[in-house]
Formats: sequence, C-alpha cells, structure tokens
Amino acid sequence: MTARRPSLAVVGATGAIGGVMLQILSEHADIWGELKLIASPRSAGGKLVVRGEETEVLELSEDVFDDVDVALFLAPDEVSERWAPLAASKGAVVIDDSAAFRMDGDVPLVVPEINPHSARIRPRGIVASPNSTTLALIVAVGALHAEFGLRELVVSSYQAVSGVGRDGVAALREQLSVVTGTELGTKPGDVRRVVGDTDGGPFAAPVALNVVPWAGTDAGDGWSSEELAIRDECRKILDLPNLRVSATCVYVPVITTHSMSVHARFENEVTVDRAHEILATAPGVVLYDNPGAGDFPTPSDVVGTDPTWVGRVRRSMDEPRALELFVCGDNLRKGAALNVAQIAESVAVEFPRS
Amino acid sequence: MTARRPSLAVVGATGAIGGVMLQILSEHADIWGELKLIASPRSAGGKLVVRGEETEVLELSEDVFDDVDVALFLAPDEVSERWAPLAASKGAVVIDDSAAFRMDGDVPLVVPEINPHSARIRPRGIVASPNSTTLALIVAVGALHAEFGLRELVVSSYQAVSGVGRDGVAALREQLSVVTGTELGTKPGDVRRVVGDTDGGPFAAPVALNVVPWAGTDAGDGWSSEELAIRDECRKILDLPNLRVSATCVYVPVITTHSMSVHARFENEVTVDRAHEILATAPGVVLYDNPGAGDFPTPSDVVGTDPTWVGRVRRSMDEPRALELFVCGDNLRKGAALNVAQIAESVAVEFPRS
Repeated sequence: MTARRPSLAVVGATGAIGGVMLQILSEHADIWGELKLIASPRSAGGKLVVRGEETEVLELSEDVFDDVDVALFLAPDEVSERWAPLAASKGAVVIDDSAAFRMDGDVPLVVPEINPHSARIRPRGIVASPNSTTLALIVAVGALHAEFGLRELVVSSYQAVSGVGRDGVAALREQLSVVTGTELGTKPGDVRRVVGDTDGGPFAAPVALNVVPWAGTDAGDGWSSEELAIRDECRKILDLPNLRVSATCVYVPVITTHSMSVHARFENEVTVDRAHEILATAPGVVLYDNPGAGDFPTPSDVVGTDPTWVGRVRRSMDEPRALELFVCGDNLRKGAALNVAQIAESVAVEFPRS
Repeated sequence: MTARRPSLAVVGATGAIGGVMLQILSEHADIWGELKLIASPRSAGGKLVVRGEETEVLELSEDVFDDVDVALFLAPDEVSERWAPLAASKGAVVIDDSAAFRMDGDVPLVVPEINPHSARIRPRGIVASPNSTTLALIVAVGALHAEFGLRELVVSSYQAVSGVGRDGVAALREQLSVVTGTELGTKPGDVRRVVGDTDGGPFAAPVALNVVPWAGTDAGDGWSSEELAIRDECRKILDLPNLRVSATCVYVPVITTHSMSVHARFENEVTVDRAHEILATAPGVVLYDNPGAGDFPTPSDVVGTDPTWVGRVRRSMDEPRALELFVCGDNLRKGAALNVAQIAESVAVEFPRS
C-alpha cells in the first residue's frame, strides 16, 4: 500500500508571492497529494497552471480547509489573522507568510537553514515565516553566528518595490515612464512634484530616481515597523533575546531583490578567510566576493535565484570582532515563497500521521 | 582708495561641478575682482556666463595663474597633482576639490562649519575640500560630536550617479531608456545582460533598476577607495585620529544627492530631543524629521539645495549612547562646489595682503 501523500492548500495563489509559489511547487520534487489553490472572492474562479495541470482557484471559505494537511498562507495580515487559526482548528498545519503571528510566543518563526527544529513545536498549529528583509540577511548572518557568536547588527536596507506587492511594481514602472528621458531628478522636489501628481503609489515619496527611507508603519520613537521587525525577528530566530540590532529600512528603485549593508559584531575575533570558508559552505548561501574583478552581488544578478548572495566581506578596520557584508536575496523567493515552501516540505515528512 | 578685491581662477569651469560653481558665484555676494575661467585645451575657447557676464574660457597653462589670488581646482586628481602646486608657487591660495592632497599632512582638509580655522595654516599653499560622501554626513555628525563626543561611525551610502561626473548621469539615463517599459529587472541578470550590451558606463555593474556596492578603486582587504576615504577624512576633519569608522559605499539610480544611513556612537548618552535641538540650530543643517507625517529627506527633496538635510533621528534601542540618522546632501553643491566656494570666501578676507 502506498502511503497517502499530504494534501496542500495555497491561500493567496493569485498574488505576486502566490505566483512564485506555483513556480516553486512545479520545480521542486512533487511530494504533495491533492493541491488546492485558494484566493479571495474577488480573485477566485479562474484557473492557474501548477505542476503542469490547470487548477481551479477556489474561494476562501471554512469548508475549503476540509482534509487539508498543510495550508500555506501568502496573504495580507488581516486574512491570516482571521483564517489561519480556522484552518489550524480543522487540523491543517499552517505555514503563514504574514506578520500576524511572527512574534506570537506560541508560534515558531522558522528559517530552515537556521532553526529547522523549531517548526516541530507549534502550540497553535501555526508556523510563521519571517519578513523578507530579515530573510535577506539571516541565513548568512546565522552561519557566521554559529562560529563567531553574534552580539550586534547594524543594518541598512536597499529594498525592492515588489516588497509591497504588485502595487509597488506598478508604481515604480509608472513613475519611471514619467521621469525617463526628462531632466527630472536635478532640481529640488521636481520628481516629487511631477510623480506625485501622476501616481504617488504605495510609498511615502516617489521612488523613481529617488530613495525612500521609510518602510511599513510608524512604530513610535521614530522607528518604522519594518525596522523593529528585523530586530525582533533576528532575536527570535537566532534565540538571542539580547542581540543588539539597529536597522534602517530604505526603498530603492529596484523591482525585486532586497540588498542589505550589514555590520556584524561578534563575541570572538573574526578573519575574512574563515568567514569566506563558512559562507562558501553554508546551506542557502552563495559567496560572490572578488570586488576588484567586479564580483559582488547586485539585485540584477540575484533576482529569480534561491540563495542569499554574499559579497564585500571585510573585517572592520577598527574592530577585529566585526565584519562588514553586502547581502542580496530575492524578496519573493527566499524572502517569501521559497522559505514557506521549505518549511512546508520539512513538515510534510510528518505525514501520513499515525 | 578702494582696496583691490581678490582675483579668482576656476579650473574645470566647463565640468559638472564647474557649472554649479558658476551658479554659486553668481548667487553669492560678489566679493571677487578679476575672474578667470579655465579649462583643459579640449574645453577651452568658448564662453560661459558668470555674474551676468559672458566670460571667455582660458586654456590651462602656467601663465594663466599670474596675478591670481585664489585658485579653485574642480578637476580630476591628475590635473590637480600637476597644476595645483604650480598655481601655489605663483602665490595663489589653491582650494582643491580633488582627492590628490586630501590626506597630505601639509594640506588642511576643511569644512567651514566644522574646522574653519584649519584653512589658515597651509604649508603648501593648498587647502583641500573633502569627498562628496564625507561632506554628505560630516556637517550633521560634526555638530553632534561637539556636544556628545563621537566614538564610532557605521555608515552605508546611497550615492548618486553624478558623483562620477557627467558620464555617470549619461550612463544612467541611457540605461533607463533601455529598461523602462520592459519586464527587465525580474529575471536573473537580465538588466546586466541587456544594459551591459548597450552602455555599461563608468559603474562596475548596471545601475538602472539596480544598486552597485562598489565606488572608486580597489583599496585592498576588500575595501573600496571611497570607503577608506570616508574613514580617513572624517578622522582628519574632526581631529579624531582614533575614530572608529566602517563605511559601505553603494551607487543607486539617483541623478544627484548622496544619502547616508548613519549609526553614530558617542562617548556620552544621547537623547533624540537634544539631538533635534542641536541639528535644528546647527549651521548648514536642515532638520526634517516627522516620518509618520511623511517628513524625512529624500534626494528628490534635497537636490539643488545647499544644506545637509537630516531626518529619521532615533536613539538606538540597545545602546543609549548611539543615534541612527538618515542624511541627504547635494553632492554637486555642498558635496563639491559649495564647500569649495565657502572655503574660498573664508580665505578672501586675507586680501589685500599687507
């Protein structure tokens, strides 16, 4: 008798991250049984191709989670808040990509390369996947932490507009069509004035020919929610409740792939040679570091790929316990869909249940 | 009898920074006597308007510095290396914007808001103006240092393409015309492939829809020359030879205005309220810091203006002696021509000599 393969539901199948998830499910080893694609009433009803088969998109409802073993939520916070506990109550293991449960003490926050064991203990039946900015750096930083003992992170992000979804990409493309071929970007406020009249988009200022140092919502004391999320999530994933973290989050006119400039201070002295050895063999990391020859990661190199790319590895000149790094990660793949898929695959081995 | 006003020479008058200098000379109080515009043989011969008058552009030569009191060099390093000492030997006070003399022990490196007195002692007859990246942050950081005592800087730059001159701007505009309206920027290497075939430009990778973490030349141990320049110059200007500085320099697709994410650790505890008071009254600084209401500096707001704009002021959550800041400065104005003009104006009071 063949064991029944676990069934899978994908909530948010029609979104930007959902689209990447369907690619990943079609590329990875096919370990799943029945596959349900689910979307909001507005987006349900059509068909999408996954694993070579046209599959109907079902409407999100209570009944749709019947007989689902693993449910992936790639949806806004408020959708997860309402529907993830319901899916869990019906027996599904929920892997949630939203921010709704990331800091819940009864919900593990999992990066399979770093803390895979955490996915096994899930009092609420929910496993959370981190923010895309956290995911851009945590795999590389976690590998270095295992050897050197991490004490402090100072990070500045160069975030892609797809981090806010398809609206962000549409806004940048619209803004670029306005500014390209003009002299805009050379006089005070000209981009803000012209683009603002056309399509401000989901950013707090125009992002074409500009950078926007504000991501998420106002979290108090001058911090943005995205900056605090990096601090809280790194502490939780690495199980370092006292880790010192200062983050500054900035949108740049890049479609997809977040970059981060990272200053990491460790308990012990570091060397670039040993850091290179660690990063060259760490799972989920590509070391690309010979800048004099043009070998450093940029978003254009990294978009569409799975790993975290690391370059510009330097030992701080004035602190032998600190490293500088420049890291890039596709915010839709490892930063979202891929990490969720990896967690789901690690959970799938629990099925069929005895 | 009216005192003779000092004569001024502008070497590099036809370049990007030269153009901004002519604007500034036309806007500022007219303290100068004879004004000579000078350029390489390739660019000399035409006429430019300054202070409302058409002025011939003279060819760079030994004789052109006869009777010049103050000579501004807005030219490549190799031009300054050859011609600045010659101008000084003829009695001119040279204000040099190149990197040629910045770290020379006999050449002061001057930011008038921070160390104006240094311009008086110039054994070689030369005063140097800092790198545009250093200038983007030093006025704000220097004001905070005066009160709190600076100990460490961790900075990441978001540098504008005009930092490499008109070639950089042309390369970005050409690259944007290729990528705008396409799906480029969503698949691995597509921008690099397509733009690389069109016009790589002066950057180590395409900068449209991308960020490029490499500025300047290979300075060894993984560092770029621009990163070490920030460290060396901040130490020299602030007279803090042991200041800890870690910089990461990254080009972004912005025409003009460098931005920097700054983590500044001080000897003493800091408060955001006191930092706001200092920055609100510091010369050459605009405080623009109410992010929940959309008030933070972006390059689009700052381009074409004189001051350093500062926002996103936060006290580090895990270090009461550290502040996070986001600063923007026009790299052609305060970052180049304006600082040179300010130094020249401070030197002009020495004339006529007794």
